[in-house]
Amino acid sequence: MIRIGLLGAGRIGQVHARAVASVPMAKLIAVADTFTKNAQLVQDQYGCDIRTIDQILLSDDIDGVIICTPTDTHADLIESFAQAGKAIFCEKPVDLDIFRVKACLTIVQEENATLMVGFNRRYDPDFQALRASIDAGQIGEVEMVTIISRDPAAPPDEYIKRSGGIFRDMMIHDFDVARWMLGEEVNSVQATASVLTDPKFGKYDDFDSANAVLTTASGKHCTITNSRRASFGYDQRIEVHGSEGCVSAENHHQSRITVATTHGYTRPPLLDFFMNRYIAAYAAEIEHFVDCISSGTQPRTGGHDGLMSLALAEAALESVRTGSAVDPKDMLPNTK
Amino acid sequence: MIRIGLLGAGRIGQVHARAVASVPMAKLIAVADTFTKNAQLVQDQYGCDIRTIDQILLSDDIDGVIICTPTDTHADLIESFAQAGKAIFCEKPVDLDIFRVKACLTIVQEENATLMVGFNRRYDPDFQALRASIDAGQIGEVEMVTIISRDPAAPPDEYIKRSGGIFRDMMIHDFDVARWMLGEEVNSVQATASVLTDPKFGKYDDFDSANAVLTTASGKHCTITNSRRASFGYDQRIEVHGSEGCVSAENHHQSRITVATTHGYTRPPLLDFFMNRYIAAYAAEIEHFVDCISSGTQPRTGGHDGLMSLALAEAALESVRTGSAVDPKDMLPNTK
Amino acid sequence: MIRIGLLGAGRIGQVHARAVASVPMAKLIAVADTFTKNAQLVQDQYGCDIRTIDQILLSDDIDGVIICTPTDTHADLIESFAQAGKAIFCEKPVDLDIFRVKACLTIVQEENATLMVGFNRRYDPDFQALRASIDAGQIGEVEMVTIISRDPAAPPDEYIKRSGGIFRDMMIHDFDVARWMLGEEVNSVQATASVLTDPKFGKYDDFDSANAVLTTASGKHCTITNSRRASFGYDQRIEVHGSEGCVSAENHHQSRITVATTHGYTRPPLLDFFMNRYIAAYAAEIEHFVDCISSGTQPRTGGHDGLMSLALAEAALESVRTGSAVDPKDMLPNTK
Amino acid sequence: MIRIGLLGAGRIGQVHARAVASVPMAKLIAVADTFTKNAQLVQDQYGCDIRTIDQILLSDDIDGVIICTPTDTHADLIESFAQAGKAIFCEKPVDLDIFRVKACLTIVQEENATLMVGFNRRYDPDFQALRASIDAGQIGEVEMVTIISRDPAAPPDEYIKRSGGIFRDMMIHDFDVARWMLGEEVNSVQATASVLTDPKFGKYDDFDSANAVLTTASGKHCTITNSRRASFGYDQRIEVHGSEGCVSAENHHQSRITVATTHGYTRPPLLDFFMNRYIAAYAAEIEHFVDCISSGTQPRTGGHDGLMSLALAEAALESVRTGSAVDPKDMLPNTK
Repeated sequence: MIRIGLLGAGRIGQVHARAVASVPMAKLIAVADTFTKNAQLVQDQYGCDIRTIDQILLSDDIDGVIICTPTDTHADLIESFAQAGKAIFCEKPVDLDIFRVKACLTIVQEENATLMVGFNRRYDPDFQALRASIDAGQIGEVEMVTIISRDPAAPPDEYIKRSGGIFRDMMIHDFDVARWMLGEEVNSVQATASVLTDPKFGKYDDFDSANAVLTTASGKHCTITNSRRASFGYDQRIEVHGSEGCVSAENHHQSRITVATTHGYTRPPLLDFFMNRYIAAYAAEIEHFVDCISSGTQPRTGGHDGLMSLALAEAALESVRTGSAVDPKDMLPNTK
Repeated sequence: MIRIGLLGAGRIGQVHARAVASVPMAKLIAVADTFTKNAQLVQDQYGCDIRTIDQILLSDDIDGVIICTPTDTHADLIESFAQAGKAIFCEKPVDLDIFRVKACLTIVQEENATLMVGFNRRYDPDFQALRASIDAGQIGEVEMVTIISRDPAAPPDEYIKRSGGIFRDMMIHDFDVARWMLGEEVNSVQATASVLTDPKFGKYDDFDSANAVLTTASGKHCTITNSRRASFGYDQRIEVHGSEGCVSAENHHQSRITVATTHGYTRPPLLDFFMNRYIAAYAAEIEHFVDCISSGTQPRTGGHDGLMSLALAEAALESVRTGSAVDPKDMLPNTK
Repeated sequence: MIRIGLLGAGRIGQVHARAVASVPMAKLIAVADTFTKNAQLVQDQYGCDIRTIDQILLSDDIDGVIICTPTDTHADLIESFAQAGKAIFCEKPVDLDIFRVKACLTIVQEENATLMVGFNRRYDPDFQALRASIDAGQIGEVEMVTIISRDPAAPPDEYIKRSGGIFRDMMIHDFDVARWMLGEEVNSVQATASVLTDPKFGKYDDFDSANAVLTTASGKHCTITNSRRASFGYDQRIEVHGSEGCVSAENHHQSRITVATTHGYTRPPLLDFFMNRYIAAYAAEIEHFVDCISSGTQPRTGGHDGLMSLALAEAALESVRTGSAVDPKDMLPNTK
Repeated sequence: MIRIGLLGAGRIGQVHARAVASVPMAKLIAVADTFTKNAQLVQDQYGCDIRTIDQILLSDDIDGVIICTPTDTHADLIESFAQAGKAIFCEKPVDLDIFRVKACLTIVQEENATLMVGFNRRYDPDFQALRASIDAGQIGEVEMVTIISRDPAAPPDEYIKRSGGIFRDMMIHDFDVARWMLGEEVNSVQATASVLTDPKFGKYDDFDSANAVLTTASGKHCTITNSRRASFGYDQRIEVHGSEGCVSAENHHQSRITVATTHGYTRPPLLDFFMNRYIAAYAAEIEHFVDCISSGTQPRTGGHDGLMSLALAEAALESVRTGSAVDPKDMLPNTK
């Protein structure tokens, strides 16, 4: 039985608590949250202890922790728990500052700790089926990837301010998917961004609409399109074109019905909340984390993936600023 | 060059005139219509002669005729032109009276005439692709056929009165498709019918909504569903389930766009007129007629098909009246 | 907290145990199974007691039971637990003998017991969305219903022998859906059936391919198509045509990807197991049962629904035997 | 009656000849081709004269010409026929050299001639329905356009050599569609390109895989993806995302059937030849040309559109060379 501690019991923390409960091999032992109400809620539903983060750090009956606290605490917590010998699952990003991320990963490496970064899309059953189709050779060699990713609506202003901007907060997921699908590191990023849906994004020095084109050494391309607004729901599409075919994954509608009337044939809008859309992915993600602890293997999405996606985000921002293509390796601390 | 005479230049006659013009090997020589305006229209567009039906009957420069006159003239015209040695394409039905059909076909046979009956759906490219998939063995042995066929709206009252009713006028097309797809004669028909869309159908002793289940000697089934009203357009679907798979043909929408909004994902309604929906089928049908004249071969849809479909319609009507399954062979004149 | 006892911990019993665990307001208190291993499995996973059925009958700490024992024990257990004042969820059918069902329901009524019959499809989210669209008036008045329902493969021989045949075992689900969608009782059933997929069905006096056409007093129709074999998975479709439109529910594919190659555009086959296909329906069904106990309301699918669906199955069988339309009311014990 | 002369009777010339024949208001008077066999073919099918280009230039009975000769003759012919007072339809491009195009358009303007450039996609019924949906306000303000355009297979080597490269030959169509959909001129182009499908493209200093991101002054984006190879057919997709929704146009499959087997649900590949895919567009295009001559109005796609699309192609090439964003206005002769 793998024994889990949950740090942070807000919205995403509760999703992970439920996921832990659904994994037969895992047990939620303790939860910590400065908001007692959140901690209480998790205790009521899953019967675990309430402890402080420091208590969990010292607990002998905890094998791994799930970090769902605010972003600016991630790196510190990762370092502490790595040094305490616990396995760590951390929601992305490790930090918004790539130098801080690099420093943190150095400690993780020194401690030989297990660190998994929460790139939930890699655990989505449809996207896994898509990747499996590529691995099975059904489309030949990967050539061009198209990712379209749109949020139903803008996040709250408080969130936008601290998010790090559309590239570090939103497109970072697509950068990770791009790396997964391309199967090769990116050496050039061109990006454009603008404010189209709401002037407030400009006020926070951010954008709401962005495109990036990634290129690898062998000439493979990936096009990413992001928007902070989609009236029809949470738009999440991947298409991979290869030498012998093309594989794509369809969006998730609210139900599978179609109503035909004099106005046409209408299917419902898309699921409009990321937790509903990725409910299966969140469960699979935590199951993978538990498996990694149990078997002593490294997670499929580790610190390096967090670092490289952040480097792509930095490169995209730099490209928007300069109008020129940028090599993401030039954004990495150690190459400067 | 195959030289064609057109008898009747109304709506469907004009469709066939255009089809003749599009077949390189054919030429429209003459048109006959008691409404001079109709004949004039065809002459203006295709540069053919205007003649009377009797003149066309005696014309040496006509190889075949296309009969688009009112239904109650079909059988007489077929007989005359068969005796005159012309190839004949006749819109369905040969006649609403199965005894008259039988008598007419006997003369056609005696004269060894070429008679093609206008079951346009057999010439639809999608339905041909569907049948080709079966012939290629993609679904194994045919087991169960599902046909759904709905008109956008009721025909005019005058039409309904003389149509022979929903089974002889509308479902007759589906009976022909059923025979084509089953590849085996039907020996049992169960049918139900009711008036749901407009009470006027009851006034004319007709129905607007009907189902039939056909069974063959080897136990294959076909289910047919008809309605005289579909708000979303001209609904024309065929699905064939076999031992190793299932093949179906999708409807034709007005365009291929999809509009996604907060209300959902909407595709346009279906084409709502049979001539638009089956435009390619009408062209292919006439091309086949011309090919048959040119090569001296028998058409894929001949008098026998017209007779058997009418027998199925009679059996369905009898089943509605009695509530019992009826063998269509018992409806054929020669078996009584 | 609603306290549940589980009678029978086989395949479907385990599905229901998991469903109980996922309902916050419910708790699985005890399980009974003559196969100790099955009971043990449930105990291990959900931490409940193992008791005998008789012990559960006498338990003060049980509010309701879920009956997943063999069909021939259903009616007796329902009667006992109704008399013991427990709420009852019973997998369909109550019994294969309509007289036995009637007698059992009389006792349920006398005891004023809560009886829910497991027609899982009524709880499927897609089918509920479909029904909600009708209730919202989106397609106007219901006119014609089309249900296509095909199993991936034949059940084991032992199962076939005791199943009561395709109409009582398989199409009974479709009869229930038909009643739900028509919103009006059926007064005429026409059915045909044959053996097409495997001669063994004939050996057991059963069929593997069947159609039924149901008609209501107001002339609404429902066409049902069943097959015991579908190479492409578990085929479960409903389409309802109304005066102002048509609503349909799509099948569940194994994933949402499409692979395009030189051979075409391919989506994966359908889910091929009823428990995967209806996993959400099973959870919602048990949640509804718990809600009914908690609020003292009658379930949406009760004993009457079980009885009427069985009457439709009997009528269909009689129609196959006689070739004539049969009124299902004539199959009900009290009307004879 | 509008009287047409056809210059060049090769593959695309024959398509246009057929289109002229299908327009009631137009008549093909003469054809010119240095390959007598091509001219003969058109004469045989449509009964027109065979003349030389010079004869057509001097013909009083010709109102307009359709130029389908090799690209390097286009500009000269446009100038001559403009000076001769004939209306001109010219296949794209006017010329591969933007200075030559500019000079030619100056003469067209001086002569006040009617010049239509063959951007066939603007006349495709599906793309017109898409644009009409935008015009009807269904998706609100246009924000982001996605165009995916892939050829089934590489053109012949001879063609590649003289084509002007993937941006001037292939993506130029997408640039025109982008301008049409954005409804605003582009002021920044970022592009990437590589050789992935066949090394021969590199040999000719060309690419087979390319992306471009276009941005307008108001911050609207368009992403274009091109490949010279798609195993599944001729891939032609447009999607426009707006403030209130998204509209897209689906590809054209070879037929509308779906075959479901144990391997999945398969639709046929796409049409794999541009003339089949755009058959309706070619007909509508010529109909528009005839309408313009008849009514004395300017065509929807004129010389300016040809020039601006070529400027976008030049900007894309420059961006590939430099890795930086390029303003297409800087590519225009008059702005240098």
